[in-house]
Amino acid sequence: MLLSGSNLSKQIKRELKEKVRVELEENLSKSPGLGIILVGDKADSKIYVNMKKRACKFVGIENFDVHMSVDVTEDEVLAQVDAFNENPDIHGILIQLPLPPHLNEQRILNRVRLDKDVDGFHLENVGKLAVNSKEGGVLVPCTPAGIMELLARNGVDVSGKNVVVIGRSKIVGIPISLLMLHANATVTVCHSRTQDYRQYTRNADIVVVAVGRAKMIKADDLKDGAVVVDVGINRVNSDNEKGYVIVGDVDFDDVKDKVSAITPVPGGVGPMTIAMLLKHTVDAWDPSK
Amino acid sequence: MLLSGSNLSKQIKRELKEKVRVELEENLSKSPGLGIILVGDKADSKIYVNMKKRACKFVGIENFDVHMSVDVTEDEVLAQVDAFNENPDIHGILIQLPLPPHLNEQRILNRVRLDKDVDGFHLENVGKLAVNSKEGGVLVPCTPAGIMELLARNGVDVSGKNVVVIGRSKIVGIPISLLMLHANATVTVCHSRTQDYRQYTRNADIVVVAVGRAKMIKADDLKDGAVVVDVGINRVNSDNEKGYVIVGDVDFDDVKDKVSAITPVPGGVGPMTIAMLLKHTVDAWDPSK
Repeated sequence: MLLSGSNLSKQIKRELKEKVRVELEENLSKSPGLGIILVGDKADSKIYVNMKKRACKFVGIENFDVHMSVDVTEDEVLAQVDAFNENPDIHGILIQLPLPPHLNEQRILNRVRLDKDVDGFHLENVGKLAVNSKEGGVLVPCTPAGIMELLARNGVDVSGKNVVVIGRSKIVGIPISLLMLHANATVTVCHSRTQDYRQYTRNADIVVVAVGRAKMIKADDLKDGAVVVDVGINRVNSDNEKGYVIVGDVDFDDVKDKVSAITPVPGGVGPMTIAMLLKHTVDAWDPSK
Repeated sequence: MLLSGSNLSKQIKRELKEKVRVELEENLSKSPGLGIILVGDKADSKIYVNMKKRACKFVGIENFDVHMSVDVTEDEVLAQVDAFNENPDIHGILIQLPLPPHLNEQRILNRVRLDKDVDGFHLENVGKLAVNSKEGGVLVPCTPAGIMELLARNGVDVSGKNVVVIGRSKIVGIPISLLMLHANATVTVCHSRTQDYRQYTRNADIVVVAVGRAKMIKADDLKDGAVVVDVGINRVNSDNEKGYVIVGDVDFDDVKDKVSAITPVPGGVGPMTIAMLLKHTVDAWDPSK
């Protein structure tokens, strides 16, 4: 089974669009709003911000985007976050990462009001995720939230399963491990210092790979019928028109006949990340959610 | 090898006492101070608070302890936390758990000023622990901190090791898993919904058990030479004078000839918890640390 994030994200976007339409008709007078802060001129970051803005437009989320120059001071960024925090038309705040190195990323992320933290990077939301506290609501980072949604909507139950996560980044590896654990999976986290990750992946019912190494996982590393979630996005040289292709951390062609389900790259986890950003923004706007 | 928390905690207390003495002689005019809030009359809680107060006295930490009645309101407790937060003679704040059910435990714990949070239960400290952020200091819960100290001071290196944690509580299982992960162990978390924990523990270099089930882990569950950390404290009926004995989650006599190192119960992890509370308080007081 192909776990298509492209298809599911389209469906979620349609659902959200419908929800916004109905709420505006019946209950609320104001559209949901997303505040976006982009610092500097990184080409990738601009592309991502544009994708997010387009997706917002489709759903009916109003954008408030601010582009700050690469030499902005931390105080200026914090003041912008404060302005978004206080703006009643803005229900979610997105700070496009990475920030230039002179800015303290965590300090800026921690300035976002908890209930507008649609990226889930505020340390208090991370703490809630860690100890599974639902108190006052919790916002979870979008990529791991998207993975859980993609599995759930495809009928993949994680409870009681042997789940192996490769990678321990703060935006994917750690939060997906915690989400899986609280969803009653038995979770193993492997990383660069793991001695022979294959001894773990070969016994896993579900493998989540978020490493950034092209085609690292082969059929031989997996057990028959495993479910594979590939978070990797790697550029590999190619003699096609662009000069490259995008591949995941999993060797798709090698494993596809052995696994029971797998996310493609592109079109797997990636689109789900944006869908969850939209969902979190609509949820933050909708008091009935 | 017996990993004696009794002996190590005594040594740490002597080290802390010496540190306090030297600092007071050379640099600081004021003793470290620990604010303790005890709500209600649970016998166990009173015993624990008294043990902590005695340990503080030995080290030279001044106690500010407040005993509130079981029907205190949440606002009254929060006001007491605020008073401790503002008191410059208090460097660490301990709220003895559990609180009566009408009080919102997490809201009260989250009121503690981050730098006085010697128990490490503020959600922002939990978040820092989760993503391994050292920014502005991080305070880690005392029991897992004590386990790491006990292993390190006995020369047990966890980096690259296969570590299995049984239990996912917010005060032990989750934080010890995160500490082990950031110390470069490959970490698996098992719990009540795990299908056959033995398949994990039998391959583990280090097993941490924090479940609360007497003598659950037997020799057959472990590999030769494993290191075992037993966090369990269980009362089992006995025909001795007291009518009970305290045993761990590990069947000590059954496993002792198979393992390479093990914490006894009592006298293993328990005393380390108090030692870490003292250490965190002295660290919070000492600006040079």
